[in-house]
Amino acid sequence: MNAIRWMNGTLQLLDQRKLPHLVEYLELTTAAAVSDAIRDMVVRGAPAIGITAAYGVVLSARQHYRATPDNWRELMRGDMARLLAARPTAVNLRWAMERLGALADTLQGDPVPALTAEAGRIHDDDIAANRHMGELGAAYIDGEVLTHCNTGSLATGGYGTALGVIRSAWAGGKLQQVFADETRPWMQGSRLTAWELVQDNIPVTLICEGAAGALMRQGGLKWVIVGADRVVANGDVANKIGTYNLAVNARHHGLGFMVVAPTSTIDLQTASGEGIEIESRAEAEVLAVRGERIAAAGAGAWNPVFDVTPAALVDVLVTERGVVERPDTDKISDLMG
Amino acid sequence: MNAIRWMNGTLQLLDQRKLPHLVEYLELTTAAAVSDAIRDMVVRGAPAIGITAAYGVVLSARQHYRATPDNWRELMRGDMARLLAARPTAVNLRWAMERLGALADTLQGDPVPALTAEAGRIHDDDIAANRHMGELGAAYIDGEVLTHCNTGSLATGGYGTALGVIRSAWAGGKLQQVFADETRPWMQGSRLTAWELVQDNIPVTLICEGAAGALMRQGGLKWVIVGADRVVANGDVANKIGTYNLAVNARHHGLGFMVVAPTSTIDLQTASGEGIEIESRAEAEVLAVRGERIAAAGAGAWNPVFDVTPAALVDVLVTERGVVERPDTDKISDLMG
Repeated sequence: MNAIRWMNGTLQLLDQRKLPHLVEYLELTTAAAVSDAIRDMVVRGAPAIGITAAYGVVLSARQHYRATPDNWRELMRGDMARLLAARPTAVNLRWAMERLGALADTLQGDPVPALTAEAGRIHDDDIAANRHMGELGAAYIDGEVLTHCNTGSLATGGYGTALGVIRSAWAGGKLQQVFADETRPWMQGSRLTAWELVQDNIPVTLICEGAAGALMRQGGLKWVIVGADRVVANGDVANKIGTYNLAVNARHHGLGFMVVAPTSTIDLQTASGEGIEIESRAEAEVLAVRGERIAAAGAGAWNPVFDVTPAALVDVLVTERGVVERPDTDKISDLMG
Repeated sequence: MNAIRWMNGTLQLLDQRKLPHLVEYLELTTAAAVSDAIRDMVVRGAPAIGITAAYGVVLSARQHYRATPDNWRELMRGDMARLLAARPTAVNLRWAMERLGALADTLQGDPVPALTAEAGRIHDDDIAANRHMGELGAAYIDGEVLTHCNTGSLATGGYGTALGVIRSAWAGGKLQQVFADETRPWMQGSRLTAWELVQDNIPVTLICEGAAGALMRQGGLKWVIVGADRVVANGDVANKIGTYNLAVNARHHGLGFMVVAPTSTIDLQTASGEGIEIESRAEAEVLAVRGERIAAAGAGAWNPVFDVTPAALVDVLVTERGVVERPDTDKISDLMG
């Protein structure tokens, strides 16, 4: 199942808001529609957002080159700014924009073929990175694991980051049991991770976020494995709200805490987690479930989408360039070389 | 708003499954109906369960004394066993059964007046205990607090345990902000705690359980305040799943962790948390929200209703007999005298 398809010059996005009950692709033909789809969480997951935005740039370049071949680049820059603003935390978005923007500056004539090829390369490279990270990470896994949110095919170009490690470890026969947080408020664990694992015939047991500590305390669990929306220069990790809770509990219980992220998620421009802009979304996402109001009238909500886990709580950072144990500024710098 | 009303020889229970959208009382006239209501969570919260079961014993005694005045006691014992089995973790249930059972053994003739009076005393005493605990606990509070599940009027005879402390602290002008976990899977925080606080004009901000660590890390929060379903001889605390997560995070961040529970919740017969039976409920409670399936087909779930927080993570235990700081077996023993 592909979350992102590029077919005959059209971008098709699997509408992840409707999973697992409906499998429905939206067709997008403009960068504006792509920005909206990213903002509205038709597609989510840092690598998938980066890939989607790259195709959005292709759509933008095509539209503007056809209409006004003399100033397509300037108009495309406007669309790129809008794409960049769709979700503030995932750095893959900026990374993809910079890569396409740099290429666009070198192009003469019709930019569409070269930009399309570059977006496809970003997409293909991400899948290859995931498969490689899956192998690297699986080498650590033995026993039971807990994961958070969705980091699988749906969140990436394909295969997955943390879920790629889980897939590889399962294939290698080293993984006994996968627990997944349901991941309020969007329920990516229940809706997306469970759906992907069931399709792969990997048994999955969902828990409410609050049950993670009790699960760790009863023994059996060896690793918490998560993805990342941004890893900054000192190794601090922004990821789905709830990740930091798990990291604190993992350390308290002596479990390993693994972050799996391609280098497109690493942001050397930001020194530490304090510099990461954390997106806040509408209170209604917490006060309701799937549009149905749950909370008492008059109650407010705090709804940050991400939290920051300090590098000191990360045991292993897996990237496609290699594994960094106990990441810090020097080790991240060496990795990115 | 009273969760439990005894009117004209009938037990009326506010159906907490329907809050906050519907305020509806069920009328119960038999102990069997009371057992079912406790099991099905019409009423929940350890003190409220104990009080409800006490009235259930009154209904049982009345029914059996009228039908077969010679062996009402034996038939009542059967009903008490059923009440006791309705929820295994809250020890207030056993405590109330023992108290009514001991009284019943001394009664001659119609047992209903004396048992009714005793159930009423249990109810009244709980409210008085809550108000006293509210004062004792509030003395510690200054700043922002986070609470979990519902421990208010709905979970007790009235006023509340942890929520009683919050009410008293608010009334005393010492509490700046109340955060409440939404408390999956039953959403007692969103549905019940928020409803109670809004009625009292105390501003409340809901968070998903996963956000607690991030909230603690940003500063401002001083205390986590929870109730208990059972406190055992060494001070270990069984409470709503998610409590232990919070205790681990509170300690990591240097916050205070306060448990508020009347002595009817203290179980000296159990030495430590390992001896507490933890109720598990249906997987469907995690896989769905309010009856609507959320999770992918084929996924399983782990749904323990409670977890155990070791005494070592408890800074303050507030009871109506006094406050125990850093509880352990000796201090609990002294308290219970």
